[in-house]
Amino acid sequence: MANIKDVAKKAGVSISTVSRVLNNRGYIGKETRRKVEKAMAEINYSPNQIARALQKSQSYILGMIVPDSNHPFFSELIKHVEVFANEQNYKVVICNSLDQPDKEANYINMLRENRVDGIIMCSHTLDVEEYKSVLFPIVTFDRILSNQVPYVASDNYRGGEIATEHLIQAGCKRLLHISGPLKLDLLANRRADAFRLTCMRHHLHHDIIEGTNDNLTFEYFRHFIANEVADRLQSYDGVFCSNDMVAYALYLYAAANGINVPERLKIVGYDYHSFTRMLKTPRLTTISQSAKRLGKVLSSTIIHVIEKKDEDTINNTIVDVELVKGETT
Amino acid sequence: MANIKDVAKKAGVSISTVSRVLNNRGYIGKETRRKVEKAMAEINYSPNQIARALQKSQSYILGMIVPDSNHPFFSELIKHVEVFANEQNYKVVICNSLDQPDKEANYINMLRENRVDGIIMCSHTLDVEEYKSVLFPIVTFDRILSNQVPYVASDNYRGGEIATEHLIQAGCKRLLHISGPLKLDLLANRRADAFRLTCMRHHLHHDIIEGTNDNLTFEYFRHFIANEVADRLQSYDGVFCSNDMVAYALYLYAAANGINVPERLKIVGYDYHSFTRMLKTPRLTTISQSAKRLGKVLSSTIIHVIEKKDEDTINNTIVDVELVKGETT
Repeated sequence: MANIKDVAKKAGVSISTVSRVLNNRGYIGKETRRKVEKAMAEINYSPNQIARALQKSQSYILGMIVPDSNHPFFSELIKHVEVFANEQNYKVVICNSLDQPDKEANYINMLRENRVDGIIMCSHTLDVEEYKSVLFPIVTFDRILSNQVPYVASDNYRGGEIATEHLIQAGCKRLLHISGPLKLDLLANRRADAFRLTCMRHHLHHDIIEGTNDNLTFEYFRHFIANEVADRLQSYDGVFCSNDMVAYALYLYAAANGINVPERLKIVGYDYHSFTRMLKTPRLTTISQSAKRLGKVLSSTIIHVIEKKDEDTINNTIVDVELVKGETT
Repeated sequence: MANIKDVAKKAGVSISTVSRVLNNRGYIGKETRRKVEKAMAEINYSPNQIARALQKSQSYILGMIVPDSNHPFFSELIKHVEVFANEQNYKVVICNSLDQPDKEANYINMLRENRVDGIIMCSHTLDVEEYKSVLFPIVTFDRILSNQVPYVASDNYRGGEIATEHLIQAGCKRLLHISGPLKLDLLANRRADAFRLTCMRHHLHHDIIEGTNDNLTFEYFRHFIANEVADRLQSYDGVFCSNDMVAYALYLYAAANGINVPERLKIVGYDYHSFTRMLKTPRLTTISQSAKRLGKVLSSTIIHVIEKKDEDTINNTIVDVELVKGETT
């Protein structure tokens, strides 16, 4: 493979001149720059970014750990993180923790050993304590690790409030929330807090059935509805589900068991990710959190931390949500 | 950050002993290895993989270029490529070409400059000629670049044949295929070849409407059905769609326009990716190509090429397909 010496020889200039062009340092005349660039193109020279990364101790690689890159929400988040990072000249290494704590820990080590510049952490199976040894830039999605680590989340509390108010305005009197796992201190749990407080404010009967996060597949959610929710469903006329896959699984159960939606049972989801936007049979009523905005903010925040641009402005970010009215309420 | 000298000092051994442990070279006593590993853990040392990559001229990074990492098929393919690559100690950098030739070309350059070990190429907007300058390991999904570059594909011909035979067995007499763009020489076009030949074998009236690949979004497919297919739909009683998003878009159009599916119009798709597996309203009849098997083969093939394990065994791979009977036929 061609090296910098070959470029210098081809262009008829010194090695240090080529180096100045490559690093955009010092004065280089227009004509000289043109000659060097032409020589690089002709002998198919590409600067070795690994060597430059080692020299500059920056790799321009971001690690992104997600539970499952095929989940419609994370898939969409990855796309927007990558597209934005690419505009800033960063690359994104994707890691699937598959919600296994040992895989998550291994990925953190692997990314550290490979000197990624920072990690976008969207998988949350480890205890907060275990992230304390991660001494390089990190930003989390939907979880507070410490006040040193910025987080990005949608306005989960507001989302839970809007969803619950919508069910109440639609006439529901006995409300159920199917939440994610509440034992992990995730910001998504604020959806459950808002549900509870909104019901209390309206003096309405309400319950929460807590899910697990062992498995984010649709098949799991269908089993969960059949095994953990079905027997108790007759007690409720409105259900706020903590994600759209649960909401669709609940809709399918209701449809298969003669429970009319929305007449007898109203359903609101959360996400409005690519699956929900495609699904038209039925269109789900849901809370939209924008993966595009979240992905862009995750990218820009981690790059901000890495490049230490004005540390005072590195903030946590809460992205707005909104109700999307479909056919299930 | 701790370095190899600190480890040697802490363990009370020489630097070359630590190096031998790290590289697993030469004889090291059990007790010595234990001491070194303990020292590494205590001072939180992690070997700098970038420096080692430079030394070994291998980065253990794979590039994977896809049109859209949020498309349900590519999203699933990425997951399985990543999970398998990780087991082999490789990392995966994801690149979204968004079907723009200049973005695709930029990514190839970027990956080359970063000395990735190889590229899994799933985006195909450039002419075959333009890949000729890519001199490092590459494997393609669904496209033949040259007889030097291995490809992986599902059995597109067989898929098209099974889909068409299924429509004919179900009684269809006037058949339509909605294909992808036929001008690019993609292996997916064999679905159209098989459709045509199967119809001819049965002496049945048939047509093909060709799609574009400017845009793989569901909204685009809905517009495409409304603008390019709707007016001609009354002439057909069976449609084989080259992907499940088109099939669902066609189903929605039919349902909204009083065309009963499957009584009046039968629809078969292609993919059976995560979106289709979740969709139960209706369950689409489709051809299943396993993203899990394709992803695993793409990973293992590129690693095979990179590590030059027995070059004679580096083959193109065709993965079996099967019909999944749903409610649209």
